[in-house]
Amino acid sequence: MEYERIPALLISSPKNVEYLSGRDTGRVLLTEEEDFLWTRELYMEVNKELYSEKSYPFDVAAYQKEAVKNRIIELKIKELAIENLPHLVYEKARKDLRVKLTVSEAVDRQRAVKTSYEIELLRKSASIAKKAMAKAFDVVGAGVREIDALAEIEYEIRMQGSDATPFSDGMLLSSGPASANIHARASGRKIASGSTVVVDLGGRYESYYSDMTRTLGIEKVGALERDLLEFVDDLRARAIDIVSTEMKAADLHAFVEGEIVKKGYKFFHGTGHGVGLEIHEFPSITGDSTDVLKEGMVFTIEPGIYVPGKLGVRFEDMVLLKKGKPEVLTV
Amino acid sequence: MEYERIPALLISSPKNVEYLSGRDTGRVLLTEEEDFLWTRELYMEVNKELYSEKSYPFDVAAYQKEAVKNRIIELKIKELAIENLPHLVYEKARKDLRVKLTVSEAVDRQRAVKTSYEIELLRKSASIAKKAMAKAFDVVGAGVREIDALAEIEYEIRMQGSDATPFSDGMLLSSGPASANIHARASGRKIASGSTVVVDLGGRYESYYSDMTRTLGIEKVGALERDLLEFVDDLRARAIDIVSTEMKAADLHAFVEGEIVKKGYKFFHGTGHGVGLEIHEFPSITGDSTDVLKEGMVFTIEPGIYVPGKLGVRFEDMVLLKKGKPEVLTV
Repeated sequence: MEYERIPALLISSPKNVEYLSGRDTGRVLLTEEEDFLWTRELYMEVNKELYSEKSYPFDVAAYQKEAVKNRIIELKIKELAIENLPHLVYEKARKDLRVKLTVSEAVDRQRAVKTSYEIELLRKSASIAKKAMAKAFDVVGAGVREIDALAEIEYEIRMQGSDATPFSDGMLLSSGPASANIHARASGRKIASGSTVVVDLGGRYESYYSDMTRTLGIEKVGALERDLLEFVDDLRARAIDIVSTEMKAADLHAFVEGEIVKKGYKFFHGTGHGVGLEIHEFPSITGDSTDVLKEGMVFTIEPGIYVPGKLGVRFEDMVLLKKGKPEVLTV
Repeated sequence: MEYERIPALLISSPKNVEYLSGRDTGRVLLTEEEDFLWTRELYMEVNKELYSEKSYPFDVAAYQKEAVKNRIIELKIKELAIENLPHLVYEKARKDLRVKLTVSEAVDRQRAVKTSYEIELLRKSASIAKKAMAKAFDVVGAGVREIDALAEIEYEIRMQGSDATPFSDGMLLSSGPASANIHARASGRKIASGSTVVVDLGGRYESYYSDMTRTLGIEKVGALERDLLEFVDDLRARAIDIVSTEMKAADLHAFVEGEIVKKGYKFFHGTGHGVGLEIHEFPSITGDSTDVLKEGMVFTIEPGIYVPGKLGVRFEDMVLLKKGKPEVLTV
């Protein structure tokens, strides 16, 4: 791997370690000559099979105090890149390692472009999300408590084989005025006829996440509800249509925001985010993003309109950029 | 609040913002004269009731670009403490704000000691965990797939009113040799008669987490299983017994580790961690912790023994330190 010609790169965040080494435990040191993995003794045993594969690219050792530091000194590394770690960790590394220390997002950046293997896992993960959304259409209805509907859907996500719950606190399901809060949590309130219900969910398949949102109109919704449901769902489709390779992420966001503003509302969040080993990763599709959309990227597109005291409406799909064109993974 | 006589403190991590302001959104600036909260315009509306309470301690304003920076300049703040944020964020703040910048964990430290209000929420949260564990004893059995048992238990956690799934990826449930991996995820494997099953779960009640682990022996377990089940469960009880105010966390860990080593095994993780708005917070009960146990702290005690290729055994309770004595919240 090239990694911007960094002489040496030390990786410690679990998701980046998992990306490089196949397991989310340990420290990885990439150098021009050789690559190293240190992990706890227990995991040396637990992951023995993987680590002893002939083609495994790392020199694996049990972590011992100062092992990484000593190896860096031994290899006479003069310039070392680390991740964007907490400032005190950075300062400690700077003092301990006595190298020219820089911060690099190289691995996070590389992760934005998926391999064909990763794309297959993301397809399977998206398929869990789709099945869970079908369940949501079954169980969400007038008179049902939000939390009960949510419990049924999360159960379905697990029964479909998801290896994690959706997102860090579980899925989002909120109805009526509560859904005006982007991150509203399900409560004991009963879903009312005529209201909208935002259902934001996902699964995880072999460590790869999925993310999908639909807003359901319950029985006969009013004119405002109907108008916004149609508008936002249509905007989702129109935004996906203009996705192309080499497009600036900020331009995609500007299109979505512009349409929402023309409609007379504000856009309160970003248009989307990459999905992979993390639920939010590069690319970032926001107004101040400098990211450019590339072949092999997988990301969400999720326009939303929120009217405090009244309702929220959001539609979100996961999109793969393939042969210059968007392919929706969640339909 | 004293906060180590820091002239001004800027808080941006969502859990610390929630602790101070009641909602997990925005930026908080604490100064000697006045305290400020900036939040997105949407949340000004969504949280209007709370923010407009007469006794609400913050001057609340909608966030606008440079709002925080401009206020810091206006207040002539010369020395500012921030949280231990990523290094690049620290560097940007250092350049932008032109103040003497320091890093403070004051809010994280204060959060370790719970108020009586927080303790009530933690009790309710622990009670969700207990009920979920009772469900685990019902559904875990020989011939049941790990993932099916897990789905039933997570469903129960939600039905008990938990406002989040347990931990960031869901609860842990692993059987037999797989449980030797501390963080093993449930899979499609069927639970075998004679094996042990580690069940590590929790709930969240009004933003406060709970955390609890039991290891179940399935039908007739062998001598090794029986011995370790008894030993670790007993060690959990003995470790809780010696908890007292002003005890060094490292000493508590040394006791647990010493007993496991005497038994002929290694101890592969920490003895425990604080629980509150986060599932892992201060105090840290590990070998290199400098924390001291204080009245009002709530933390886990979780000894474990892991034998690669064979089994894992862990027992974990949540303990409140009250009137100098440990009170177990998860029994």
